[in-house]
Amino acid sequence: MAKIVLYMWMSLDGFVAGPDDGPEQGLGVGGERLHDFLTFEGADHPGSARSHDEVGTAVMAEAMATGAVLTGRRTFEFAGQWGGDHHDGVPIVVLTRSAPAEPPLGHARYVTDVREAAAQAKAAAGDRDVLLHGAEAARACLRAGVLDEMALQVVPVLLGSGRRLFDDMPAEQVELELVRALDGPGMVHLRYRVLPTDAAGGER
Amino acid sequence: MAKIVLYMWMSLDGFVAGPDDGPEQGLGVGGERLHDFLTFEGADHPGSARSHDEVGTAVMAEAMATGAVLTGRRTFEFAGQWGGDHHDGVPIVVLTRSAPAEPPLGHARYVTDVREAAAQAKAAAGDRDVLLHGAEAARACLRAGVLDEMALQVVPVLLGSGRRLFDDMPAEQVELELVRALDGPGMVHLRYRVLPTDAAGGER
Repeated sequence: MAKIVLYMWMSLDGFVAGPDDGPEQGLGVGGERLHDFLTFEGADHPGSARSHDEVGTAVMAEAMATGAVLTGRRTFEFAGQWGGDHHDGVPIVVLTRSAPAEPPLGHARYVTDVREAAAQAKAAAGDRDVLLHGAEAARACLRAGVLDEMALQVVPVLLGSGRRLFDDMPAEQVELELVRALDGPGMVHLRYRVLPTDAAGGER
Repeated sequence: MAKIVLYMWMSLDGFVAGPDDGPEQGLGVGGERLHDFLTFEGADHPGSARSHDEVGTAVMAEAMATGAVLTGRRTFEFAGQWGGDHHDGVPIVVLTRSAPAEPPLGHARYVTDVREAAAQAKAAAGDRDVLLHGAEAARACLRAGVLDEMALQVVPVLLGSGRRLFDDMPAEQVELELVRALDGPGMVHLRYRVLPTDAAGGER
């Protein structure tokens, strides 16, 4: 059964983008620090994962082996809709409050209900996992009880300001299970399973 | 040379206490979840570190081997001034905006300047480290450039609200070096060194 897995690169102080993020600057002011690992001097393929960071490379490969993408509208737009193809032509389900008149590019579709979006993404992924993108979408999935796991790459920096992954959350505690902790060069990669609340299937 | 080391138990979403923390409830509503590890059923010594959690026990022992305590006033008061003795009778330096007329209990003293407080704590610790307590004091030390390391125990829970460790921070990025990552039962213990800013000795 497909799992919905959030992959996120986050500063130790909890930011996934710097301040003033927008279409021209998806990671905000200074936020590109969070994705430093993606490029390194002398790389044959700029934008590829660091060839000498086996752990980071493996995590990235895992994310790129997913069978569908579930994303918030903001992230989708900031990324230029990924030109309609996030990776390998897998379906992209875009969670949005209201679907625009113009259809999205390529393999993407708009869905306005979070449970419906999750269900469509899982169905599309088949026996593979769903790659979840975007802080706001992650919180929506968490609240709806449809977020299965979180793979967090903890970048060793304090950004001080910007967009937090965990913000405006319901006050109810959510228990997690640490299912993996990997040490990469200079950073840890943590993977948590979201445990069901007592009220099974209930709204968080 | 003594280092100033913050020891903190923090939820994955960055909270070190639940909401409405106060003298009667130092960890706030639901915040005791962060210190669950300190007690377990059937313990001979309630309040002692879990005997079967060797990693957590070692980290706690490390904190208790420090030669001085540097704490914020709030934490100090919420803890009942630790009766004047945090551990082994080591000096307690209490950072406060204004020192009250009544002297603190036991081995504690009030200091109003963060750099002076840090210097006094380090001098008192001799060749051992200084245990730093309290989120606000930690941020003051960070801003003043006197925080050397952070030992963060990441508790696998989302609290959703409460007191954040990293809040109201200066927007300037602070680079960290991951110096240790230990896996305890169900949680990771991360230790970071705070790297100097470009403007050496400058205010953060």
